[in-house]
Amino acid sequence: MAADNLTRDAGAQRSTPTGAAHADLRRWLFAPVSVAIVGQSDDPSKTAGRPLKFLRQMGYAGRVYPINSRREQVLGERAWPSLAALPEIPEHAYIVTPTEAAVEAVEECGRLGVKVATVLADGFAETGREGLVRESRLRETCARTGIRLVGPSSLGVVDLRSKAMLTANAAFDEPDLPAGRIFAASHSGSLIGALLSRGKARGVGFAGLVSVGNEVDLSLGEICATTLDDPGIDGYMLFLETMRHARALRRFALAAAQRGKPIIAYKLGRSAAARELAVSHTGALAGEDDVADVFLKACGIARVDTLDALIEGLPLLARVPVATHGGRRRVGVVTTTAGGATMVIDPLASRGVTIEPASAATLARLAGAGIEVKPARLVDLTIAGARYQTMKATLDILLAAPEFDLVLAVVGSSARAQPEMTVRPIIDSAGAGKPLAAFLAPDAPEALAALSRAGVPNFRTPEACADAIAAALARRTPQPYSPSSSREADAAPRAGGDGTMLDELAAGARLERLGIARAPSVALDADIARAPRLPFPFPVAVKLLSAEVAHKSDVGGVMLGVADGGALLAAIGAIRTSVAKRTPGARIARVLVQPMVAGLGEVLLGYRVDRDVGPLVMLAAGGVLTEIERDRSLRLAPVDLAGARDMITEVRGLTALAGYRGKPKGDLEALAHAVVAISQLAEDAGVAEAEINPLIVRPAGEGVVAVDALVRLMV
Amino acid sequence: MAADNLTRDAGAQRSTPTGAAHADLRRWLFAPVSVAIVGQSDDPSKTAGRPLKFLRQMGYAGRVYPINSRREQVLGERAWPSLAALPEIPEHAYIVTPTEAAVEAVEECGRLGVKVATVLADGFAETGREGLVRESRLRETCARTGIRLVGPSSLGVVDLRSKAMLTANAAFDEPDLPAGRIFAASHSGSLIGALLSRGKARGVGFAGLVSVGNEVDLSLGEICATTLDDPGIDGYMLFLETMRHARALRRFALAAAQRGKPIIAYKLGRSAAARELAVSHTGALAGEDDVADVFLKACGIARVDTLDALIEGLPLLARVPVATHGGRRRVGVVTTTAGGATMVIDPLASRGVTIEPASAATLARLAGAGIEVKPARLVDLTIAGARYQTMKATLDILLAAPEFDLVLAVVGSSARAQPEMTVRPIIDSAGAGKPLAAFLAPDAPEALAALSRAGVPNFRTPEACADAIAAALARRTPQPYSPSSSREADAAPRAGGDGTMLDELAAGARLERLGIARAPSVALDADIARAPRLPFPFPVAVKLLSAEVAHKSDVGGVMLGVADGGALLAAIGAIRTSVAKRTPGARIARVLVQPMVAGLGEVLLGYRVDRDVGPLVMLAAGGVLTEIERDRSLRLAPVDLAGARDMITEVRGLTALAGYRGKPKGDLEALAHAVVAISQLAEDAGVAEAEINPLIVRPAGEGVVAVDALVRLMV
Repeated sequence: MAADNLTRDAGAQRSTPTGAAHADLRRWLFAPVSVAIVGQSDDPSKTAGRPLKFLRQMGYAGRVYPINSRREQVLGERAWPSLAALPEIPEHAYIVTPTEAAVEAVEECGRLGVKVATVLADGFAETGREGLVRESRLRETCARTGIRLVGPSSLGVVDLRSKAMLTANAAFDEPDLPAGRIFAASHSGSLIGALLSRGKARGVGFAGLVSVGNEVDLSLGEICATTLDDPGIDGYMLFLETMRHARALRRFALAAAQRGKPIIAYKLGRSAAARELAVSHTGALAGEDDVADVFLKACGIARVDTLDALIEGLPLLARVPVATHGGRRRVGVVTTTAGGATMVIDPLASRGVTIEPASAATLARLAGAGIEVKPARLVDLTIAGARYQTMKATLDILLAAPEFDLVLAVVGSSARAQPEMTVRPIIDSAGAGKPLAAFLAPDAPEALAALSRAGVPNFRTPEACADAIAAALARRTPQPYSPSSSREADAAPRAGGDGTMLDELAAGARLERLGIARAPSVALDADIARAPRLPFPFPVAVKLLSAEVAHKSDVGGVMLGVADGGALLAAIGAIRTSVAKRTPGARIARVLVQPMVAGLGEVLLGYRVDRDVGPLVMLAAGGVLTEIERDRSLRLAPVDLAGARDMITEVRGLTALAGYRGKPKGDLEALAHAVVAISQLAEDAGVAEAEINPLIVRPAGEGVVAVDALVRLMV
Repeated sequence: MAADNLTRDAGAQRSTPTGAAHADLRRWLFAPVSVAIVGQSDDPSKTAGRPLKFLRQMGYAGRVYPINSRREQVLGERAWPSLAALPEIPEHAYIVTPTEAAVEAVEECGRLGVKVATVLADGFAETGREGLVRESRLRETCARTGIRLVGPSSLGVVDLRSKAMLTANAAFDEPDLPAGRIFAASHSGSLIGALLSRGKARGVGFAGLVSVGNEVDLSLGEICATTLDDPGIDGYMLFLETMRHARALRRFALAAAQRGKPIIAYKLGRSAAARELAVSHTGALAGEDDVADVFLKACGIARVDTLDALIEGLPLLARVPVATHGGRRRVGVVTTTAGGATMVIDPLASRGVTIEPASAATLARLAGAGIEVKPARLVDLTIAGARYQTMKATLDILLAAPEFDLVLAVVGSSARAQPEMTVRPIIDSAGAGKPLAAFLAPDAPEALAALSRAGVPNFRTPEACADAIAAALARRTPQPYSPSSSREADAAPRAGGDGTMLDELAAGARLERLGIARAPSVALDADIARAPRLPFPFPVAVKLLSAEVAHKSDVGGVMLGVADGGALLAAIGAIRTSVAKRTPGARIARVLVQPMVAGLGEVLLGYRVDRDVGPLVMLAAGGVLTEIERDRSLRLAPVDLAGARDMITEVRGLTALAGYRGKPKGDLEALAHAVVAISQLAEDAGVAEAEINPLIVRPAGEGVVAVDALVRLMV
């Protein structure tokens, strides 16, 4: 815990650059006038031999200072013995020495006034205590000298326009790397090579790429933010392994959204095994995947699940309008191959996208153009669709039809045999206001290249096509910062087991102030001798009232359905005996008495400040299945009423309370208000965590009632 | 319903060819000495112009007879006016005329003694009544004349060795199509072009391909079965849209398994939208996707979810031993790029594959070879793994380690920069007994080609890699036919609402004979005047006893917790009144009285004869969540005890009965016996469907008890 705090706190102490400072930092990072390669090797086949080779191969025009203390020459150029020996202070130093020497080199860079250092070596947080100490030394150097740091464990920083190839990634060993308009940032160093080379193979070019490494100083979000006003960058491609420094990522994402620059992201960690690996190889703590999901969504970042969609998805994102809350997701599909189209429809529908059939009006317009298709989810032109006129007329009609938010064209073997003729109608129709995407069933490189040249979003696999379309349609206007809830000035939010617990009575009162009704509650001394008059009838529930015992039902601290005054006294006695036996030393001063509350169902409603992403609200179906089925919905807090209603529809188990199969309806509107209410804790910096379990959902019109509550304060 | 029977019954009347007949049929299909193209066009850009062009382009050596009644020449060759005018009877006729003429042409082919006809035209079952009548005419022609038919709606039959290019698929318009050792069969005609071209782009070659169309006569399984003894075919690639003719597919799959020829399949229909499309464009009825899943698994067919895995997966299947029941699925991963490797691990783990960490002994062996890696799920060599010696030594140690069933190597950017050096250790180690697969993070076509040439399974996307590995490890020895349950001689199994319902008493008795305990039950006349002496104590459950009313609790036909004799008479009266009101005309002669049965939980246990795949047993968690969460497990019936235990572990909701979080354990062993028992109905040709809902699961050692049962007979 201490080590973790060590890692996490210092970053927040650095101020975030803005405006002119951004522009300077961007230049030092990506277009420096002078660079040093500290530890440059004379052997170009070695990792430390690559940066100089790549810089020369691409024709970097700035001044380059290779530093090698043991050689006078490297790769046929003069080598300098040290940073101090250079005739000028380089703007950016790429340090490719081993670990210990790298820490020393950063110190020297800082002392000399180098603006930015990028560190290749690993051996930091991911190695445990010793590495954490090294990281804190780097952080201290940055704070003291003002140098900014990329890494450690960074495979480099590359700008393909300035030709600043400060990288040791072997995939950059090509003289003909085309520059494009995408900026890529990755937690994985190898992946910048994978994105570059896979992009090159399909005509996707990059303005720059960065491997952010351990983000000891500059985080992925901060680095991307420096490029926001770069007119040569249209969109962002992110490869994420952790949600570390999520607030900087969110600030960047909101600013990018304001500028209309889309962000597409692939985030590892769908499986527990992958999350565990992220911990072991990055030294970062891994959060839960659905937390990452809601966070990225709240940032307006499109998350994809396939590598191909990451690479191919940005042109589509750029064309799909970002929906505000509740935007629709209806795709119309036209094809010459029903089987090929269904390969895309299958994963699309599995991701919740609606495959919309053509309306009667649209079918009539098609018939009017001489195109007869069967009414179905798919506009299946069969082989006739290989004719230009047929496909063009169909696309124009579909793109004008109000029932579709996006049109997908899937073409069969003609895309290979007659590439030009096949893609021409798609290209000619793509200018319409509505987004149009294409998937080609055969291997059809020429047709794909023609589509890409024309700017038409196109995909190589049905899975990537579905993935990108679903992600584009799911994108929402970012949730704005609530200044108090985001607590910009705070250190990283705390999490874990610290902080004062309130007892159930105090917790219930705290939540009641937010507007969440609770069951009438009477606190009694545990040594009471006579049953008191209760303000509600029997039967009642009797529960231990103690902030010390968290799971009171596990220790015999709860008795339900207590029938009368005598039974009440007996129940209190039984609770005292049982709890005393199971939790020796616990103070058993009071019990809480409540009426038995009946309802149609129960839910778990929770709030917590997540270590990475900050305040979260959670709604889950009640009972043991909640945990087994992981049937829950999350949002960044606070949420509004519309967001709360969305959450309710996302919990599958709550279908039963929405009038499923003739069952009585629960008061889901009151539940939505309770979700909004608990999410307001985000405005209260003092609360770390709150949970109502269960919250009883009564019949429509009768509200919801909290019958157990827990609140943990920050301190 | 009648139309459906029309479609389905005739197929079963044709006998399945075996031995010499298979060999003849294979020759007529794939290596005919003479072919006719009925309706060959003179315009090679038209669909009907392609077959002759392709035959000549590839250099087919047999005799070709283009038939065109309106031209003396087509594509510069002599055209014949009719089949009757030919100097010989061709072995195989590809009929590319419009629909009505095609039906006539098949008739003429049959009359003349053509062995096989393949029909391109659509306009059959998928168009409704009229098309169904056309299909029945085709079927009648086949039965009467003995001709065998591929299609209709077949884009063709191709053998790349004999060069019999009987196809109109545009993707075959290439002179340099390499022949390989895979046979592909597809419900979608366009997909044979997609498989061919995508395979060609990555060095995957085909012996033959067939578009099976509507399978009016020859089904996909039957066509594949003809090639089983073709020594030039090593494995099968199937693209499935329906489970139509599932029994023929199963016979083929079992025979292929005996010959050690693996089958990989992609099956559309994960989503309801896709299943609906399969109905509308093939005219076949769509079953549920998990039924297809268990059926393919019972056939020993590896089902994949990505198109790339379908194309790239067979080399891996060929190397992964097929596990008998309960085989293990532990993958060891070695990499130079943790991020790249985790991209594969994430979907692998999500599919239930275990990512096994290297054991202490393995780590010690690695250390002994000078390779120091951190103990983790991943053997992360970092950049050092780009050296031949390091990767080779590591692979050899991992491939010899007993904790892995398969080893995956993931290589980063060096695979692009130094393809030969990078793949060499993988190729050199691949000879070991254990399967080895490779994924390369960058675009690395040379490295992939080298791996493919050496026969090392390799993948272009992390998703396809995970998909194929998971499918290969999930493959099991096919479940053998039980001759009585498979009922070879029967027509297709009946399904739907027909057949006699037994009342609850008779149904319970029927299931009790199989060994499934039921609650003590007493039947009383509904007009009883005095409460009788019951052989069990109150409280009791009282239920309408009638085979006419299926959902008795929906019409007020069930009263629970009836406390004494007076209440029993009142309950019977209430049931009579309520049922009479809600289902006018229903006979209310008797009620059933049972003791209230308590247990730890309840399940739904079902059996039915599926229209496509035959007898199935189903186990689901009880309650409304069963339907909402679709939390169920299926198997082809009968199952053995081990299979039943597996089913129990697959139902997530049953976790609560396995001692989850200290809860009392249910008698899951008794439940497994009940699953086996109900699955024995597969031996009883008279039962169409049975359901126990609920089956009460009591504490371990106390068994399970059926408290409601339903049995529907076949007739």
